[in-house]
Amino acid sequence: MTDDALRIDPQRLFARLDALAQVGAIDGGGCCRLALTDDDRRGRDLVVRWMRELDLAVSIDAIGNVFGLRAGRTQAAPVMTGSHIDTVRTGGRYDGNLGVLAGLEVLQTLDDASIVTERPLVVAFFTDEEGARFPPDMLGSLVYVGDMPLAEALDVRAIDGARLGDELARIGYAGSAAPGVHRPHAFVELHIEQGPVLDAEGVTIGAVQDLQGISWQQLTVTGQSNHAGTTPMRLRHDAGYAAAAVAGYVRELAREMGGSQVGTVGKIDLHPNLINVIAARATLTVDLRNIDEARLREAEERLAVFLAQLASDEGVTIETRSLARFEPVRFDAGVVARIEAVASSLGLSHRRMTSGAGHDAQMLARICPTAMIFVPSVQGISHNPAEHTEAVDLAAGANVLLHTLLGLANDSPIT
Amino acid sequence: MTDDALRIDPQRLFARLDALAQVGAIDGGGCCRLALTDDDRRGRDLVVRWMRELDLAVSIDAIGNVFGLRAGRTQAAPVMTGSHIDTVRTGGRYDGNLGVLAGLEVLQTLDDASIVTERPLVVAFFTDEEGARFPPDMLGSLVYVGDMPLAEALDVRAIDGARLGDELARIGYAGSAAPGVHRPHAFVELHIEQGPVLDAEGVTIGAVQDLQGISWQQLTVTGQSNHAGTTPMRLRHDAGYAAAAVAGYVRELAREMGGSQVGTVGKIDLHPNLINVIAARATLTVDLRNIDEARLREAEERLAVFLAQLASDEGVTIETRSLARFEPVRFDAGVVARIEAVASSLGLSHRRMTSGAGHDAQMLARICPTAMIFVPSVQGISHNPAEHTEAVDLAAGANVLLHTLLGLANDSPIT
Repeated sequence: MTDDALRIDPQRLFARLDALAQVGAIDGGGCCRLALTDDDRRGRDLVVRWMRELDLAVSIDAIGNVFGLRAGRTQAAPVMTGSHIDTVRTGGRYDGNLGVLAGLEVLQTLDDASIVTERPLVVAFFTDEEGARFPPDMLGSLVYVGDMPLAEALDVRAIDGARLGDELARIGYAGSAAPGVHRPHAFVELHIEQGPVLDAEGVTIGAVQDLQGISWQQLTVTGQSNHAGTTPMRLRHDAGYAAAAVAGYVRELAREMGGSQVGTVGKIDLHPNLINVIAARATLTVDLRNIDEARLREAEERLAVFLAQLASDEGVTIETRSLARFEPVRFDAGVVARIEAVASSLGLSHRRMTSGAGHDAQMLARICPTAMIFVPSVQGISHNPAEHTEAVDLAAGANVLLHTLLGLANDSPIT
Repeated sequence: MTDDALRIDPQRLFARLDALAQVGAIDGGGCCRLALTDDDRRGRDLVVRWMRELDLAVSIDAIGNVFGLRAGRTQAAPVMTGSHIDTVRTGGRYDGNLGVLAGLEVLQTLDDASIVTERPLVVAFFTDEEGARFPPDMLGSLVYVGDMPLAEALDVRAIDGARLGDELARIGYAGSAAPGVHRPHAFVELHIEQGPVLDAEGVTIGAVQDLQGISWQQLTVTGQSNHAGTTPMRLRHDAGYAAAAVAGYVRELAREMGGSQVGTVGKIDLHPNLINVIAARATLTVDLRNIDEARLREAEERLAVFLAQLASDEGVTIETRSLARFEPVRFDAGVVARIEAVASSLGLSHRRMTSGAGHDAQMLARICPTAMIFVPSVQGISHNPAEHTEAVDLAAGANVLLHTLLGLANDSPIT
């Protein structure tokens, strides 16, 4: 059998996906493994056990990123793959997990075929990719590439008040490796699309060439609590109404700007949050994304103008705080072309595309040639227990990953 | 000294108000004694101790309403006063408490002057007037007047999931008296206005002739959770956006209808409530009030039309549940006139007015001649730790209550 005929074992991949999905399982088939919770620890323990069973050299860095290294014929910089295994509160079973477990499956496939690559191969999972408990998202890979100081990351507070460094130590994943260990020669991340494009078009493989810019803000509105029955409408300073007006405007803004602009208010908390009391305070988040940095900046500026007018009209104060801000990312053209070539050679339909979501790959792109492989999400559903990707597509994505990594790890120099 | 010259002791009243305000005290001088919590129990224990110190015959009914009876010369139906001592989460120190503690002060003033009235006098405090923990508001007085079955009330679930009957037993206030005990000859409730009218006009006493109708609804919006970055705006079924749109419409509705119409969305809960996930579900409340029943019904109907259109446009379902619905109330003209006459005789400025808030008196009005006495709320602020009424106004209200009760308890027949 030539290397070109090599294929991953789908059943082995599905078995690992199933086993990991049992950890923090929630109704409807999804997972809740918010970063650095006990369920995240149990998920990590399971994946680390699999890494050790594959005789990978496991290292853990000071922000809890975990790496399993398979030696190559040389000690050159490794080719890295991976993703994350933390989830949102209502996560699906493939988001992140597929990229990590397909990486393990690729290494096991190479083992079975007794293939040794020139460069070492590394499968990684990065801490707190979702940012659902500790902002910002992709925190682990951001620290890894050196663009967030470790001390600052360890001091981040969770939405439940916990300190990231304390939680990391508590679950036993404050490792000894310095962030940046195994500085990779190239990075490839396999991920579900989490959007509807591939499914709608019946295309199996997305060669992801760029990624939307992301702006996350937290708004704190301070008004005046008062009696809901006796306070005339004109005398109200209603933080709850202001929060609602922001959510309405974000929708209007995205509709008006069109193109790739999206906007979401996913989190609203009122205080005191009672039926008969005008809210004194509201905290809410605004998530804005655009593939064009200038347009994203325009969206932020238009929102700021709206907030100033709203604060004045309602007699409330509105404080804004940036929780995350990432410019759009362009992936490495050579790696994208290689993914396309592999998909073609495997007889799989493919297209170039843009990622609407943030991924660890966007951080890795700052330090090495990087691209992503997408597989379809049925109806584009993600961050939802109903998230689903067909088995044939999971296997197809893993096979594209296999041959992309194999090529990158044997070619020299990387183009 | 003739009875006409009789006055309450302001310092004694203020001391009791201060002592009760220490129970469940919160920052800013307010109170949090949500119904049937441990803090509510401590507040009840304190007021019951004061009742016993005044040698009142204390009885507790099966829904936890508490009555302190001072015997009259006859065993005729008593004249009752009182209010509530539960609070909202960010309650002030006078809302409810003033009516109960002024009632005790009136009885102590009669004791000091060795006055025995013809009819007995009763000071009552009713369970769960605020409805902030257990809907509907005024639940205790509603059961008292026989318009909510006891069994149904005991089965009400709190916003924290607890069963009312269990919590009542837990804090030791599941009494043995049947609801309706001491069926009163008349009822008078002293309360802070909780609105801006008296303060703005510099008037000391409000003779409350009627009370706004209240409509409380809980809305549950079910959409589809999905990724905030990858889901095109046109494909969203965003429960969070729908909740915000409702809050925006309620404001618009109140503005458009004008007059006495007010509308408030004070409570919004999103699920999963995360920055990068389109909300799958939202629960929110709508509080609508109007002095005119037909206009209130119109507001409800217009909201229903809006909800149907919104559900269709956004591709979500919206379930509505009525948490409370009370028609506007007209108080007893005789009792109102008596309050005005007493205020005049005491040299106090007064005006007839409408209550924008719900009160236990509106329930008592169903079974006996009833009216209310209002004193000013500085800047109309209420349901807020900054709620304040000037000492001179607290005393004035208690003196109007004293002479109104004295008149009602000695006159026969009541007009």
